[in-house]
Amino acid sequence: MARNKHPEQTVQLILETAARLFAQKGYDETSMQDIMDATHLSKGAIYHHFSSKLDILLRIADQILMVNEDMLGKIRDRKGLTGAEKLRELFRTAVLQDYQQQLLGMMPCLLDNPKFLALLIRSVLDDAAPHYVQPILEEGMADGSIQTDSPRELAQALLLLTDLWAAPILQPVPPEEVRSRCLFLNQLTRPFGFTLMDEELIRQLEGYWRA
Amino acid sequence: MARNKHPEQTVQLILETAARLFAQKGYDETSMQDIMDATHLSKGAIYHHFSSKLDILLRIADQILMVNEDMLGKIRDRKGLTGAEKLRELFRTAVLQDYQQQLLGMMPCLLDNPKFLALLIRSVLDDAAPHYVQPILEEGMADGSIQTDSPRELAQALLLLTDLWAAPILQPVPPEEVRSRCLFLNQLTRPFGFTLMDEELIRQLEGYWRA
Repeated sequence: MARNKHPEQTVQLILETAARLFAQKGYDETSMQDIMDATHLSKGAIYHHFSSKLDILLRIADQILMVNEDMLGKIRDRKGLTGAEKLRELFRTAVLQDYQQQLLGMMPCLLDNPKFLALLIRSVLDDAAPHYVQPILEEGMADGSIQTDSPRELAQALLLLTDLWAAPILQPVPPEEVRSRCLFLNQLTRPFGFTLMDEELIRQLEGYWRA
Repeated sequence: MARNKHPEQTVQLILETAARLFAQKGYDETSMQDIMDATHLSKGAIYHHFSSKLDILLRIADQILMVNEDMLGKIRDRKGLTGAEKLRELFRTAVLQDYQQQLLGMMPCLLDNPKFLALLIRSVLDDAAPHYVQPILEEGMADGSIQTDSPRELAQALLLLTDLWAAPILQPVPPEEVRSRCLFLNQLTRPFGFTLMDEELIRQLEGYWRA
């Protein structure tokens, strides 16, 4: 491939190849050498576009999060659902959707990849909680399907617990503990008037760390 | 000072000086140069014992966590309190205690210091939750002061929310939001039979980010 003639194609080739490798072998087990071999690109060609393996992961995550936000926005703005129904739909879609599964499937153990962990927490607190979950909670308060006086706090706490803890991305957790966490979260949220996770969603989350 | 004649004294001097500077100026605003100036040690002498400023912080945190664990163990093993009373005492002491305040006071914004964030989460999940909070919850289940079927899950979720989120160490948060988070956590835990935070504790947590 002529160097720098189609830089955006090279970037996309690297991102797609790396995403496939991360998903197949896991992020931690994929080396830059693996990415070089699979793309047939030189070290220099890859480092021309990315500063590190983590940088590649962050860019993949960016692309997935963009698609994700579009999807979350559509659920938030949908008509004809109560707040509680939208909230459940939001979590269902976020977990069961292809892109998200792809990201979860390639996710490194986050406690070993703290930069990515910090990025995720920041996106939860600065973006997902105030712009997607909180408005849905407020709708639910208005239509009576959700009971709380603290939509901002509930949105943040809910997302931190679901995204970081119930989805077992901090460290490997056996399937039965993932299930216990999900059932506990359902119990925790019941006083607010909603049940977050159905059986399909729990089974999906259980599956991520089988390897 | 004769080089390497009293290495443990040099290490302790660096740790104490850095702890004082971190607490005064904040971790992010303290430079290695500041630590060199205040200890009258050369760059080489400091790097002989520590690989980076973060390394110094991690060692300070280690020392504080050790004192902390000793204190948490004493509360866990105390006689004559119900589980719910011990749990409240645990949180009170953890926050109001001198050492802990010292650590919280010097804490960097954790989202900008992800390695320290990961260390903290790991210590919550692998150590504090199973060894201190869960046994106390189980005691409370036995004496009827705490209502839950999921002591492991409750211990983890509780500590993640209090240590990372209510104590505003992820990113700066105005005092009124810290208060809202604490009151929300009290509400969240009420169905389990206990109230975590009293006014004194909330006021203490509000204070950390006034700067």
